[in-house]
Amino acid sequence: MSYQINSLNQLIENLAKLPGIGKKTAQRLAFFILKTERSEVMELAKALVSVKDNVKSCSVCFNITETDPCEVCTNPRRDKSIICVVEEPSNILTIERTNEFRGLYHVLGGALSPLTGVSPDTLKIRELISRLEGDVNEIILATNPTVEGEATAIYLSKTLGNLGVKVTRIARGLPMGGDIEYADEVTLAKAFANRS
Amino acid sequence: MSYQINSLNQLIENLAKLPGIGKKTAQRLAFFILKTERSEVMELAKALVSVKDNVKSCSVCFNITETDPCEVCTNPRRDKSIICVVEEPSNILTIERTNEFRGLYHVLGGALSPLTGVSPDTLKIRELISRLEGDVNEIILATNPTVEGEATAIYLSKTLGNLGVKVTRIARGLPMGGDIEYADEVTLAKAFANRS
Repeated sequence: MSYQINSLNQLIENLAKLPGIGKKTAQRLAFFILKTERSEVMELAKALVSVKDNVKSCSVCFNITETDPCEVCTNPRRDKSIICVVEEPSNILTIERTNEFRGLYHVLGGALSPLTGVSPDTLKIRELISRLEGDVNEIILATNPTVEGEATAIYLSKTLGNLGVKVTRIARGLPMGGDIEYADEVTLAKAFANRS
Repeated sequence: MSYQINSLNQLIENLAKLPGIGKKTAQRLAFFILKTERSEVMELAKALVSVKDNVKSCSVCFNITETDPCEVCTNPRRDKSIICVVEEPSNILTIERTNEFRGLYHVLGGALSPLTGVSPDTLKIRELISRLEGDVNEIILATNPTVEGEATAIYLSKTLGNLGVKVTRIARGLPMGGDIEYADEVTLAKAFANRS
């Protein structure tokens, strides 16, 4: 390219580092930002920095939070006898949206994956076990229904089962609004096996 | 949602304002930013502000630039007798990438569109006409091959033709690597009409 606008190129390069945003999308976004009010762009820039400065990990459940321990862990109205185990903090946001679960959480920070070097020691499993010393009655395993998530759930149910705590796994079956016609075999098999 | 992380929500809301980025993508980006090094996030934030502070419009051709007049207008090695008319500054970036055109540019700031209220007065057409007083031999109309772009090209070729300057339109035909099988009728008709 024979001509360059430095600050624009810098922005395009930085935007292109975001996941799912290629060079063309980054360019489109950069031109949109050029046309946007300065105050709105400042707000976005501030929000970016603010997230890095204010959001940390809860020392109890490893959820993301602005206060430590997090809002869920300190909330007196939540049921401290049930812990829902998830892979990532983003899963908690999704589960909270259902208003179905009123217990506590525990974020593993991933799922077992020998290929990418994620072993039980890499995950926050030891921290989960140490939390069982309280009055915990049930652990709900809400890892993803993927190969890694299932492996993690199996590993945890064995490890935690030995400690005498009740361990359950979220149901796998047909998604609501789904169509049996388009269900894959594994999901359909699970839906039959777990019929109620 | 019963629980909120303010700075994260703020970031998600701000990201969701960008074009083509919905709530879910914004959430995914926000969680990516949470995991990114602070220095990299700072760089992105700075690039955002820098673009707003440093990039302005060239007073001659209305291209975006950090210096006024812009690099293209002041470059002594560019052919000042040809002006390529485009709709948006982003078009110039794309044209420059081909290394095909060595003249000057003129950004209209859009295309004629009576429905959305874009009239000849809204576009930088008067400014284009005032540039013809120099030694301009040819105007290349590189507006988009859309209804609005074609209308603008027809309007300009009439207006500028009356002033005695040579006016050309970029060719419309089958895109390279394309397939006649999948070409639409309008494009194919143009490709036949403009055969060379």
